[in-house]
Amino acid sequence: MNYRMVSYIMGQILKVVGLFMLLPILVGFIYGEQHVVASFGIPFLITMAVGVFFTIKKPKDNSIFSMEGFVSVAASWITMSAIGALPFVISGEIPKYTDALFETVSGFTTTGATILSDVEAMSKSCLFWRAFTHWMGGMGVLMFVLAIMSSNDSRTMHMMRAECAGPKVGRLVSKSSFSARILYGIYITLTVSEAILLMFGGMPLYDAIVHACSSAGTGGFSLWGDSIAHYNSTYIEMVIAIFIILFGVNFNLYYYILIRKFSLAFKNEEVRTYFGVIILATAVITANVYHMYNGFGDTLRHTFFMVASTITSAGFSTTDTGQWPVFSQTLLLVLMFIGSCAGSTGGGMKVSRIMILIKTGIKELKYIVNPRAVTSVKMDGKPVEKDVVRGASNYFILFMMLLAISVLLVTLNGFTIEESASAVITCMNNIGFGVGRFGPAGNLGGLNAFSKIVLCFDMLLGRLEIYPLIMLFAAKNRG
Amino acid sequence: MNYRMVSYIMGQILKVVGLFMLLPILVGFIYGEQHVVASFGIPFLITMAVGVFFTIKKPKDNSIFSMEGFVSVAASWITMSAIGALPFVISGEIPKYTDALFETVSGFTTTGATILSDVEAMSKSCLFWRAFTHWMGGMGVLMFVLAIMSSNDSRTMHMMRAECAGPKVGRLVSKSSFSARILYGIYITLTVSEAILLMFGGMPLYDAIVHACSSAGTGGFSLWGDSIAHYNSTYIEMVIAIFIILFGVNFNLYYYILIRKFSLAFKNEEVRTYFGVIILATAVITANVYHMYNGFGDTLRHTFFMVASTITSAGFSTTDTGQWPVFSQTLLLVLMFIGSCAGSTGGGMKVSRIMILIKTGIKELKYIVNPRAVTSVKMDGKPVEKDVVRGASNYFILFMMLLAISVLLVTLNGFTIEESASAVITCMNNIGFGVGRFGPAGNLGGLNAFSKIVLCFDMLLGRLEIYPLIMLFAAKNRG
Repeated sequence: MNYRMVSYIMGQILKVVGLFMLLPILVGFIYGEQHVVASFGIPFLITMAVGVFFTIKKPKDNSIFSMEGFVSVAASWITMSAIGALPFVISGEIPKYTDALFETVSGFTTTGATILSDVEAMSKSCLFWRAFTHWMGGMGVLMFVLAIMSSNDSRTMHMMRAECAGPKVGRLVSKSSFSARILYGIYITLTVSEAILLMFGGMPLYDAIVHACSSAGTGGFSLWGDSIAHYNSTYIEMVIAIFIILFGVNFNLYYYILIRKFSLAFKNEEVRTYFGVIILATAVITANVYHMYNGFGDTLRHTFFMVASTITSAGFSTTDTGQWPVFSQTLLLVLMFIGSCAGSTGGGMKVSRIMILIKTGIKELKYIVNPRAVTSVKMDGKPVEKDVVRGASNYFILFMMLLAISVLLVTLNGFTIEESASAVITCMNNIGFGVGRFGPAGNLGGLNAFSKIVLCFDMLLGRLEIYPLIMLFAAKNRG
Repeated sequence: MNYRMVSYIMGQILKVVGLFMLLPILVGFIYGEQHVVASFGIPFLITMAVGVFFTIKKPKDNSIFSMEGFVSVAASWITMSAIGALPFVISGEIPKYTDALFETVSGFTTTGATILSDVEAMSKSCLFWRAFTHWMGGMGVLMFVLAIMSSNDSRTMHMMRAECAGPKVGRLVSKSSFSARILYGIYITLTVSEAILLMFGGMPLYDAIVHACSSAGTGGFSLWGDSIAHYNSTYIEMVIAIFIILFGVNFNLYYYILIRKFSLAFKNEEVRTYFGVIILATAVITANVYHMYNGFGDTLRHTFFMVASTITSAGFSTTDTGQWPVFSQTLLLVLMFIGSCAGSTGGGMKVSRIMILIKTGIKELKYIVNPRAVTSVKMDGKPVEKDVVRGASNYFILFMMLLAISVLLVTLNGFTIEESASAVITCMNNIGFGVGRFGPAGNLGGLNAFSKIVLCFDMLLGRLEIYPLIMLFAAKNRG
């Protein structure tokens, strides 16, 4: 493996993370929070120093393959989480490093699961940083590096594949650094639009920016213990629900709209299914929880928001789903696995992967009846490549096995199977809340350090879609 | 589809089931239970009449393909469960038909989950019938039909494939009816040996026969509310534990031993892994529950028995695992999914299928690092056919999806997610006990009729490995 190139890429990523740390420092200055000088200043210097050290000389051999792409992404995500946790510890707002690390991994992976029992006690700069990790992690920091540096195509594709979610990465245009720029352009436009719309609803500028960043990454960190319910505004809830749904759509769709290829955009089978699932789940849950709210409008408001928040993996809340009938809670668990579209900032298994799995299952049934009937799995009317079909099946198998192992490890903590499983499911799918004790009204603070480390791995496994992390350890074992 | 042939096969199966009903009548006469004349006599007449009607004329066109094989097996299993439930209703010992049907499906599918809260109140003839359905279902009634009728080979293979468990059916010898005879020969020999050994331990003849039948099918119905703990005998527990483990081994192995091909028998990778998992799980759980029993010997006795009972899907119990630490309970849940060997009477996903899945996962990781490195999944040193590998993956996918749908339906019953999931998991894997309320100390009697019907389907899906049942409904839809 080309270790020089791996560390060069890591260095580039760290420099970006370092520069982004200037933003919470700015926030601190505005709100007169003196601690930012130390709490963000020191990590900023460390990050920049390491970043500059690794990138001071460009490696002569700049060839990289899948392995280098996966390893540099996995190593960067772990490093930036390790450093990103420092401000919380130095400021004293999350004294234990394990807790700060959990919170930061939860931020970058856009999970939004928190160990904090009193969010509102934190400083504005730390809360901003917490939400901003969602924004960085949503589209991916490496993608940002690709957007700002012009580079060799075949090389960057290996890296994009490692950080981008979903069964398949297709380039929007022939040059990847250009695609990365388009993606970030769309991402920034949508984030800014949401912030402005939130301000129209009466949200202060600071709150609007924090919630827009958090929505953009479909993360879920809020400023309040009761999340979005705090604002008690249907308008704000609807703006957030609609934007998280939009951030859960494959970004290729926005590109197609930009270049006026509307038919490509609106015929997309994955996006149609995604909207179909949202409507269906909202309808079913509305019928199931109708008796708990004041009439149809109020029920629909809460169910639509919670369905959107769950399937997109945002993890904001307006109501405690832990009080819902078990059927609706289980349906939310199913939505967590489905997740949002490939190539979006959302989590879960991704709608297209689930569609491929279902179609593969149906194909298997046909095959068993008549082995000579050759059929292929189709998406958008075109046959899906065999590698992609096999990849989706194997991803599902590995995902479920890692999930079982994680649940087994977390049960050592002594919580019930349901609680342990819900913590793992919410972390691996990057949602943010589970059921019962770990539902929207609770937090993961009660877990021991070992469980938190397991869940940190689960969040990274979910966000980076398993392979990069395994490659990192496989590479280490090879020396 | 050749409906004439499907009904002919069903008729043959029903005649066998009918004849087997004479056994509980005999038991009833021995113990002076008058009700057997009506409770078993009427179902006996119905079964024989339907059986004879369907087989009175052999169809001219006796060609059958996969579809006919699957459909006749699925239809037969449903019909024999429907009729097999009648004695419980007519005798008044299980008054509700849904309950009786659940108990009978649980019997034939060798699940052993019961809705009875007071097993000991039942008559000896009914308890015998209950255990005997395990014996019939374990090796399969159709397999018995094949053993007694001499028939065309390619035709019977289609049917064997539908009823036999595991990723692949290989014939032992070139003629299937002869293989079926060998399998039943081994099956009867093992059952009789166990009954004799149990009598050496002081068990009365009746109890020994009932428990041997129940062990043979790895079913789990016992005569007592506290299952095997009732006898409070380490000898009896060890005999049962060892026999259920033997019934969970691929029967091909015994055939190899019979024909003195010892190397083929002892090099079998699946069987070695199966024993490895039993030893490992016993060791881990022993360490975890050590503090709950009186010393090492007592702990080992209970953990070994419960691990054997879980992985083989027997579902007997000697201790209430509901009191175990959550970690050990979760490990038992994992064992339920693993199950026993292919070609055995045990349940679960089957060890070889899980091995193929893990090896496929590892292969995928290698492929991602280097797509040009062509590797294949190997078992016993030989590459596994691609169809078998794909089949194992797709079986897993379909299994998990049907599991999710079933859990969702059962949650409508109002139990917790953990309870609902445990009921579905124990039924789909044909174990017999779950965790918590549905653990070894509980029963499934508290569920409503809708949940019971869902779980009946789950038990059949698990025992017949999904496809036959789906084919039956697909065929119906085609008219």
